Amino acid sequence: MTWVTGANGSPYGVTNLPYGVFRHGGHEPRIGVRIGDAVLDLAGAEAAGLVLAGGALGRPTLNGFMALGRPQWTAVRQRVTELLTDVTHRPVVEPLLVPIAEVELLLPFEVADYVDFYSSEHHASNVGQIFRPGQPPLLPNWRHLPVGYHGRAGTVVVSGTPVVRPRGQRGTPDGPVTGPSVRLDIEAEVGFVVGVPSPLGEPVAVADFADHVFGVVLVNDWSARDIQAWEYQPLGPFLGKSFATSVSAWVTPLDALGAAFVPAPVQDPPVVEYLRDEPHLGLDLRLAVDWNGQRVAEPPFAAMYWTPAQQLAHLTVNGASLRTGDLYASGTVSGPQRGQVGSFLELTWGGAEPVTVGGESRTFLADGDTVTLTATAPGPDGGTIALGEVTGTIRPPR
Amino acid sequence: MTWVTGANGSPYGVTNLPYGVFRHGGHEPRIGVRIGDAVLDLAGAEAAGLVLAGGALGRPTLNGFMALGRPQWTAVRQRVTELLTDVTHRPVVEPLLVPIAEVELLLPFEVADYVDFYSSEHHASNVGQIFRPGQPPLLPNWRHLPVGYHGRAGTVVVSGTPVVRPRGQRGTPDGPVTGPSVRLDIEAEVGFVVGVPSPLGEPVAVADFADHVFGVVLVNDWSARDIQAWEYQPLGPFLGKSFATSVSAWVTPLDALGAAFVPAPVQDPPVVEYLRDEPHLGLDLRLAVDWNGQRVAEPPFAAMYWTPAQQLAHLTVNGASLRTGDLYASGTVSGPQRGQVGSFLELTWGGAEPVTVGGESRTFLADGDTVTLTATAPGPDGGTIALGEVTGTIRPPR
Repeated sequence: MTWVTGANGSPYGVTNLPYGVFRHGGHEPRIGVRIGDAVLDLAGAEAAGLVLAGGALGRPTLNGFMALGRPQWTAVRQRVTELLTDVTHRPVVEPLLVPIAEVELLLPFEVADYVDFYSSEHHASNVGQIFRPGQPPLLPNWRHLPVGYHGRAGTVVVSGTPVVRPRGQRGTPDGPVTGPSVRLDIEAEVGFVVGVPSPLGEPVAVADFADHVFGVVLVNDWSARDIQAWEYQPLGPFLGKSFATSVSAWVTPLDALGAAFVPAPVQDPPVVEYLRDEPHLGLDLRLAVDWNGQRVAEPPFAAMYWTPAQQLAHLTVNGASLRTGDLYASGTVSGPQRGQVGSFLELTWGGAEPVTVGGESRTFLADGDTVTLTATAPGPDGGTIALGEVTGTIRPPR
Repeated sequence: MTWVTGANGSPYGVTNLPYGVFRHGGHEPRIGVRIGDAVLDLAGAEAAGLVLAGGALGRPTLNGFMALGRPQWTAVRQRVTELLTDVTHRPVVEPLLVPIAEVELLLPFEVADYVDFYSSEHHASNVGQIFRPGQPPLLPNWRHLPVGYHGRAGTVVVSGTPVVRPRGQRGTPDGPVTGPSVRLDIEAEVGFVVGVPSPLGEPVAVADFADHVFGVVLVNDWSARDIQAWEYQPLGPFLGKSFATSVSAWVTPLDALGAAFVPAPVQDPPVVEYLRDEPHLGLDLRLAVDWNGQRVAEPPFAAMYWTPAQQLAHLTVNGASLRTGDLYASGTVSGPQRGQVGSFLELTWGGAEPVTVGGESRTFLADGDTVTLTATAPGPDGGTIALGEVTGTIRPPR
């Protein structure tokens, strides 16, 4: 129970406490923690000696704090919990609360490298059936390793940033044409944010996941399907993705997700040794996709074939180093049913089966459309916690 | 003519003046310019008021200086040229020269995003013939756009950094196995370093290339062919590349390469509008690949199908923003002849035609092997300038 008005029973209660970076009243950007409908100014709290983090909370991104490591993450979370639950602290802490309606939320961390996986069996199967009908939907490597690729870190933007419809080449029967994308799509994903780096040449074991990963964000990996389809052979997606990738303004710490770890789907065939995790745990995050305010899908993250610990071990098995701020996303989250898919490509089966949104028949994104991804997870006390939403509106091409 | 002893006639003469970052005698890393066999300490020169760059030369990477833009780049280069040619400056400048044998050269810039293209027609054709015999060697999109993908910025390392042989999965007829790569290769490339950023949503025109690109590095895009072959479908290269990418310690400014711009190969079919450059110019950089000290190939950069200005325009046509420190590499540089290829995959035709190196029959890289890439270009005065070398030695897997 917290003394913060209205926060008990909120999905942003005292068992959640996600981190973000905000601007308020002309101050420089600073780190805060969300509690109910308020933001606790952690820079102010550290300056007042209420929390100790070696000055890391006074910076304009989470990177310095995330680099400190799990013991420090846990200590700060415990101390913040104490400040927000013990009423004796209320007189000094309450002045550090800012109503969320008054703040501007910024990109919470500086993204080092951005990797995107492809770890939903349902998504990969759907895409295979749509693009390679009559062939085996999964390629031969898919059950042996979490397929992934690098994306563009410099175009990762915070929730709320408008997305300008990208221009580019698409193939037509008469040859390529250049113009605004006509098949602009979303991908509902979950992203994992690395805090503690690793040295070049040294793989990170599946068991060391929680030593390196600080927390979780929601991700919308906007995708121009027409640009992607024409460009991607043989080196993978490039401009079909690199125009914008939106992340939530709040990073939910792993410490808040203890009750959300659940057994992941059994993997068959068995995976090679460096990918073996015991216990084999995924996360019971329940995503939702709202298209212009209308719920169109509820993708279950617990159905993901590859776990975040396996993804991290794979990412580094070749000796690739990690840096603070590395972001790796799960790939589109899709469940077995049509109402559980994380992309409009799947929802409309390649555009062949339109859906009704706001009374109109629709396939891909129109200018002015807004897509909002949200997610909840079981909280540690039997309640529910919310991940930060990620939203974006499509602007016409320039 | 410079007054620096031994520098006239050197490929690092006063018409070259590449930038780097060095450590010397316990000092913090600082920016320098190479002249002959010496490094001019630019941090010291700026501190002494001999060069003006708003303090940007006193930092431990080139990023701050590169962000200033072309007028400042040109002004600093002119001033440095003056200091090194006018003997009246010798008494104050000579104490700022450090013998190159005494310095440690560091990664010259902080890499923002790293993109790798695939722009040699000869290389793409060779790879197509090796991997897809009997089929058209170039895929349908190849002549319409410069195919590219994002790589891992965090594992870009400076010349001289040892390369630990990566571990990973490779496919076998009996299923995947995990172990050290058995087909470790090089890719000789040329990299372009972005100085001036661009805003999200605004493409950069081919004509604006020189406003954004600061200079050129040599790149060895080390590649584990067995890992790559198993992982790359359908999302492209990932761990087969991300363990290390080496760049030269010296960034050659575009201003030094004025005499190296030459007409690029005619493109047929004609390219779409945003890729049209007039004049259509490539760079006459003459690369060399030395394998354990033995020259095995001399790839001609002038044969590249897509030009660096076209690559930059393509990279941003979807509105992707540029950041200071973005690095984009050309893709493997290969000419039409076997002795002009930039990878051992091509040199040994997929490993089927071994070459003799140091008296031994060889295909891919063995532990202890050293590969050094060098390049020269026509200088502005009819002479020759050198690009910084990029070298690396293979260490056994851990």
